[in-house]
Amino acid sequence: MNMVTLIEKKKRGIVLSDEEIKELIKGFVKGEIPDYQVSALLMAIFFKGLSKEETFALTDAMRYSGDTIDLSSINGIKVDKHSTGGVGDKTTLVVAPLAAACGVPIAKMSGRGLGFTGGTVDKMESIPGFRTSMEAEEFLNQVNKIGMAVIGQSENITPADKKLYALRDVTSTVDNLGLISSSIMSKKLAAGSDAIVLDVKCGAGAFMEKLDEAVELAKMMVEIGSNAGRRTVAAITDMGQPLGVAVGNSIEVIEAIETLKGNGPEDITKLALKLSGIMVYLGGKASSPEEGQNMTRTALESGRGLAKLGEFIEAQGGDSAVIQDYSLFPQHTIEMELKSPKAGYIKAIETKRIGYASLYTGAGRATKDDILDLSAGIKIWKKIADKVDEGQTLAVLYGNDESKVAKALSIAQEAFVISDEPCESPQIIKEIIGL
Amino acid sequence: MNMVTLIEKKKRGIVLSDEEIKELIKGFVKGEIPDYQVSALLMAIFFKGLSKEETFALTDAMRYSGDTIDLSSINGIKVDKHSTGGVGDKTTLVVAPLAAACGVPIAKMSGRGLGFTGGTVDKMESIPGFRTSMEAEEFLNQVNKIGMAVIGQSENITPADKKLYALRDVTSTVDNLGLISSSIMSKKLAAGSDAIVLDVKCGAGAFMEKLDEAVELAKMMVEIGSNAGRRTVAAITDMGQPLGVAVGNSIEVIEAIETLKGNGPEDITKLALKLSGIMVYLGGKASSPEEGQNMTRTALESGRGLAKLGEFIEAQGGDSAVIQDYSLFPQHTIEMELKSPKAGYIKAIETKRIGYASLYTGAGRATKDDILDLSAGIKIWKKIADKVDEGQTLAVLYGNDESKVAKALSIAQEAFVISDEPCESPQIIKEIIGL
Repeated sequence: MNMVTLIEKKKRGIVLSDEEIKELIKGFVKGEIPDYQVSALLMAIFFKGLSKEETFALTDAMRYSGDTIDLSSINGIKVDKHSTGGVGDKTTLVVAPLAAACGVPIAKMSGRGLGFTGGTVDKMESIPGFRTSMEAEEFLNQVNKIGMAVIGQSENITPADKKLYALRDVTSTVDNLGLISSSIMSKKLAAGSDAIVLDVKCGAGAFMEKLDEAVELAKMMVEIGSNAGRRTVAAITDMGQPLGVAVGNSIEVIEAIETLKGNGPEDITKLALKLSGIMVYLGGKASSPEEGQNMTRTALESGRGLAKLGEFIEAQGGDSAVIQDYSLFPQHTIEMELKSPKAGYIKAIETKRIGYASLYTGAGRATKDDILDLSAGIKIWKKIADKVDEGQTLAVLYGNDESKVAKALSIAQEAFVISDEPCESPQIIKEIIGL
Repeated sequence: MNMVTLIEKKKRGIVLSDEEIKELIKGFVKGEIPDYQVSALLMAIFFKGLSKEETFALTDAMRYSGDTIDLSSINGIKVDKHSTGGVGDKTTLVVAPLAAACGVPIAKMSGRGLGFTGGTVDKMESIPGFRTSMEAEEFLNQVNKIGMAVIGQSENITPADKKLYALRDVTSTVDNLGLISSSIMSKKLAAGSDAIVLDVKCGAGAFMEKLDEAVELAKMMVEIGSNAGRRTVAAITDMGQPLGVAVGNSIEVIEAIETLKGNGPEDITKLALKLSGIMVYLGGKASSPEEGQNMTRTALESGRGLAKLGEFIEAQGGDSAVIQDYSLFPQHTIEMELKSPKAGYIKAIETKRIGYASLYTGAGRATKDDILDLSAGIKIWKKIADKVDEGQTLAVLYGNDESKVAKALSIAQEAFVISDEPCESPQIIKEIIGL
C-alpha cells in the first residue's frame, strides 16, 4: 500500500476501501507507517469525513488489533453500558447493580480518568480493599456467581485505538464523528458483551455540546453496533450541568450508594432507572423498556440494588461496610464554601469549569501519572433553575491541600451564572436512539 | 507555543501570526516540534490555505533558517532566474549568457534534478571538466570578472524549506499555493540577487496544469518578492509539450549551444529572448523590456551570447571546445526510433509521459542517489500541430542500456495523440505578471 496515495485519496474525498483501512491500521500498529503520515491522513479525515462503510471498517480494524474478550462462558445475554463522559457521572455505579439485580449479567471493563475526575475504576478504588484487577477466569466466574464484575481496561485491548487516539490528541484531530464513534465502539465490541447501552452526554460539560451533533454520534454508534450484530441503544442525556450533586471519587460513590438507598438526586435517579430499564429489556429479562424500568425501580425500592452493590464490593475484595459507614472512605481535611454573590436564579453552570475545579482539588489527573486524592471534589448544592439568596452556599469544595482547594474555589466561582429571572430546569433525558 | 492550539487555529481557518509562524519554523528545524504535528498542520493548510501575510511570514522564516548569500561585492544589479520546472527546459543555459552578454551580472545557484531529467547543474556537468562547486569568493570574483557564474545549491541554504518539503512530499501536502510560493521564494531570496525573473510553467507537463492556477502562483510569488524589496517578474509559459526538441542532459546543452548559434527551435529561442530581455531591463541595462529584448536579440545574432557561454565554461573548468565539437560530450551507444502509427496531425503530447520515458533512458533520477547517464534522453521531432505520415519518426531515444531504452520507448509510444484534423500550435508565452 502506498501511504501517500492513500492520503491523497482521502484529501480528494475518495472513499477508502475496507482493505486499505485494514492495511493502514495494521501498518500503523506495527510501526511500519510513520505517525507523520497518519496525522496528515487524520487531518484530511477531519475535513472530508468518513463514510459509514469506512467507519465500520475502521472500527473493525481497531477492534481486532489486540485481544478481544470472550464472554461466552457467562450464561445469559451480557449487556454493557458506556458513557461518553461528563462531570459527576457516577451512573455506572447505580445502573450496574440495578440491572444485575434484575438478572442481567454485567461483565464490564472500565477505564481510569484523565482530566476532570477519575473514571469508574478510580472511583471504585476509593472503597478500602477494592480490586479492579483480576484474572479473566476469576472475572467470568464472578459474573456467573453474583451477576456482575467490573475490571480495569486490559492493556492489550484495541492497541490501535490507543495509539491512534494518542496521535489525534496531539494533532487536533479528535473531533470527527467517524473517528470518535469508531474509537468508542471498537473498545465496546472487543469487550465482548451481546448488547450495549450508550449514554451520549450532551451540553456545555460534554464533548458534544450540541444536540444535533450528539444525535449524529449516537446514530452512528448504534449503526456500528448493529452492523457488528450487537443490539445497541443510545440515550442522549443532559450534561448542561454536573450530574447529581457530587463531583469527585469517594463522594460520587457515596452519592451512588445514597441513590440505591432511594435518597439520590432526582436527575441521577431518573437517568439510572431509564438506562438500567433498557439494559434489562436488551438482556431479555423484560418484554419492553418500560417493563424493564418497572423492574429496576422495584429493585431500587426493595433494596435489592443496594444489596447487589454490597455483594459486588465484597466479591472484589472491598469492605462493604462502607455502605453504612461513610467514614471508612478516604477523608478530606480541607473544606471551602462557595457563596452566591447575589440573589436570583441559577441560569447556567459552566460545567467544564466545575470539571477543571474538581481537577484542582485533587480529584482528577492532569497527566496520566498523577495520583488522585480520592477524598477530594466538589458538591454542587444549587443546580439550574434553583432560587438562591445572596451569601447562600452554591457549592462546597473538599481536599487535603489548602492552596489547591483555594485555587479550585477561584475557578468554580466563575462557573455559576445567576439571573434575576426564573429559569427552566433541563430535562435529563433528551432522546433515545435505536429502540 | 502550544502546537496543538496552533493546529486547531489553522483547522478553524484562523490566521496565524508572524510570531507563531516564526516559532513554528524555528521549532521544526531544531527538531523540537515533531513531524506528526507539522504534517497535521500542513494538511490543515491545504484545506484552509495561507493568507498573504502568513505566506510572507513563512517565506521569511524559511529564508533566514540557514545561510543567506551576500552578493553585495558584485557590481551592478544582480538578476536571478528561476523555472518551476518542466520537460526539456534548458532555458537557463541560453538566457544567462545572453543577459550576461548585455552586462547584467548573473550569480546563480542551481539545483540537481529529481524525476524526469537532471537539473541545470547536472546538465552543465555533461561538459568535460565543468565544476559546479566552488568557494564563495571564487564565485563572486567570477561574476565580477566575466559577468556570470552558476554553482550547485549550498547545503545550508533554507534548511527549513528542505525539511518541510521532504515532509510535504510524503504526506500529500505539496499542492498548496502558499506552501509552493514560499518554498520557491525563500530559496530565491536567500540566494541574494536584487531582481528575480520567474518562469512559471503551465500545462500538462508542469506542476501547474491550469492557467488560472499558474497565474495565481505567479502573482503570489511576485508579491512575495516585492514584499521583500526585490523586483520580481513572472512569465507564464507553455509546458503543454516538451520545450524545444531535446530532453536529457548533454543533448539539452547541445540544443542550448545551437540556440545561441541561431539554429535553435522556435519556442526555446522566443522564450529565451523574452526572459533575457526582461532580465536586462530589471538589471537596469535597458529602459524597457522591449529594449532589453532587442539587446539580447543582438547579442544572440552577433554571437556575443555564444562567446559568453564559452567564457563561462572555461571559467568553471570546462572544455569550451564542446561548443564546436559535440563529440566531446558523453556519447550514447543505443538509439531507438519512435514511428508514427498513423498519418495525421499531432494533437497533444503527454508531456509527463515523455518526462518518465526520459527518466527510463537514464537521463533522470528516480531516487536522489541514482547516477545519471548524461548522454541519454529523447529528441522530440514532431511537436503539436505538426503533420505526420504513417511510419514517420516522431522521436528518437538515446542511452547506453538497451532494455532501459526499450522500456522508455514503450512509455513514449503512448505519449503522442494523433488527430485527423489540423490542430493549432500553442503560444509559448501566455502571460507576464509584474511588469
